[in-house]
Amino acid sequence: MEQRIHTMEVATRGRGLTEVTGPVRRWVAEQGLGTGLLTIWCRHTSASLVVQENASPEVRTDLEAFLARLVPDGGDGRYRHEEEGPDDMPAHIRAMLTQTQLSIPVAEGVPVLGTWQGIFLYEHRTRPHRRELALHLLGEPGRPRRAGP
Amino acid sequence: MEQRIHTMEVATRGRGLTEVTGPVRRWVAEQGLGTGLLTIWCRHTSASLVVQENASPEVRTDLEAFLARLVPDGGDGRYRHEEEGPDDMPAHIRAMLTQTQLSIPVAEGVPVLGTWQGIFLYEHRTRPHRRELALHLLGEPGRPRRAGP
Amino acid sequence: MEQRIHTMEVATRGRGLTEVTGPVRRWVAEQGLGTGLLTIWCRHTSASLVVQENASPEVRTDLEAFLARLVPDGGDGRYRHEEEGPDDMPAHIRAMLTQTQLSIPVAEGVPVLGTWQGIFLYEHRTRPHRRELALHLLGEPGRPRRAGP
Repeated sequence: MEQRIHTMEVATRGRGLTEVTGPVRRWVAEQGLGTGLLTIWCRHTSASLVVQENASPEVRTDLEAFLARLVPDGGDGRYRHEEEGPDDMPAHIRAMLTQTQLSIPVAEGVPVLGTWQGIFLYEHRTRPHRRELALHLLGEPGRPRRAGP
Repeated sequence: MEQRIHTMEVATRGRGLTEVTGPVRRWVAEQGLGTGLLTIWCRHTSASLVVQENASPEVRTDLEAFLARLVPDGGDGRYRHEEEGPDDMPAHIRAMLTQTQLSIPVAEGVPVLGTWQGIFLYEHRTRPHRRELALHLLGEPGRPRRAGP
Repeated sequence: MEQRIHTMEVATRGRGLTEVTGPVRRWVAEQGLGTGLLTIWCRHTSASLVVQENASPEVRTDLEAFLARLVPDGGDGRYRHEEEGPDDMPAHIRAMLTQTQLSIPVAEGVPVLGTWQGIFLYEHRTRPHRRELALHLLGEPGRPRRAGP
């Protein structure tokens, strides 16, 4: 059994979803492991991970509209923690309601995502940020089925 | 250290919780591994996983009532993504707010669930579906304590 | 590759967040493993895990205020499952919306948390409880970078 560990940087364009399925699959494919387990850890409390439909951009618009209604921005004394900006406390709440970590089984060198599943980094702050994902792969050496999407 | 990988099919009866604790425990017990780590991955974006009380059906009724209020069905232009039905976009939102993956430590061949914990597949679409869970088990050979419930 | 498994008890003081980052890091450091994967499993359905900012107590106040608004206590017939108290069903809903499990990559014997990330047990019942976390560590022997905070 072997392990690999890696830090992936993701530049976000402000609040919203950035798909990372491609770079994650490519990194896994390059490790030369067959069956295994991939773990993705988001090293932030104002950005998080979600698995969502990778086909329709309207799905992402609706997800964001839902969270914006559910967790309104501050600036009006709604939150005690407002000194880092009106979007900071809502970002922490959104992170709590979504995922900081995903572990995905790997078969023949490919994470076993469903047909419509994509992995997204969800930036919850309004401004662009440089975010870090820690990737960990555990597995047995094996021939990858294909080199990623 | 050894690994096992498996696809489990679950037939749902439409929106609501289907318990999978029994079949998951049985599959783990059959692998002949003692200490280890079990990962369950739901290969969908309109169904998800939750860990909940396995005793009271009223808990499940209340969970569903809560989510139905929090994430209303569409069909009235509430969502941009409505062409797959009024229950599709709410299903994606519900999946985002719950879990796509669970990793559970295994001791003596048994996942270390608490006394009242059950693992449930949450179908978020109104119609029945055939869903796939990818199971991954990593561990050392060992004698299972018991064969599961 | 080696494995360790452990049960950590956490005494909560009623509804709210109890930080467990320190004891978790110390346990990992004591295992003498370098690169690996740590899994924390909360063995309850009325308490859960969240990763949040470890610096500001106001963040925790705002998180709790948000959840108290989103998931009101019962006692007024709002929930069918009220026989275990007005705070029991809300506790199950809060657990569903947060995390039962976290898996964190470990490098040089230290979980790769971001600078501001802390691991918290979230007690959702109003009274204090004794809670159990199951910890699982998988990794290769290695020299820890430091002994934890």
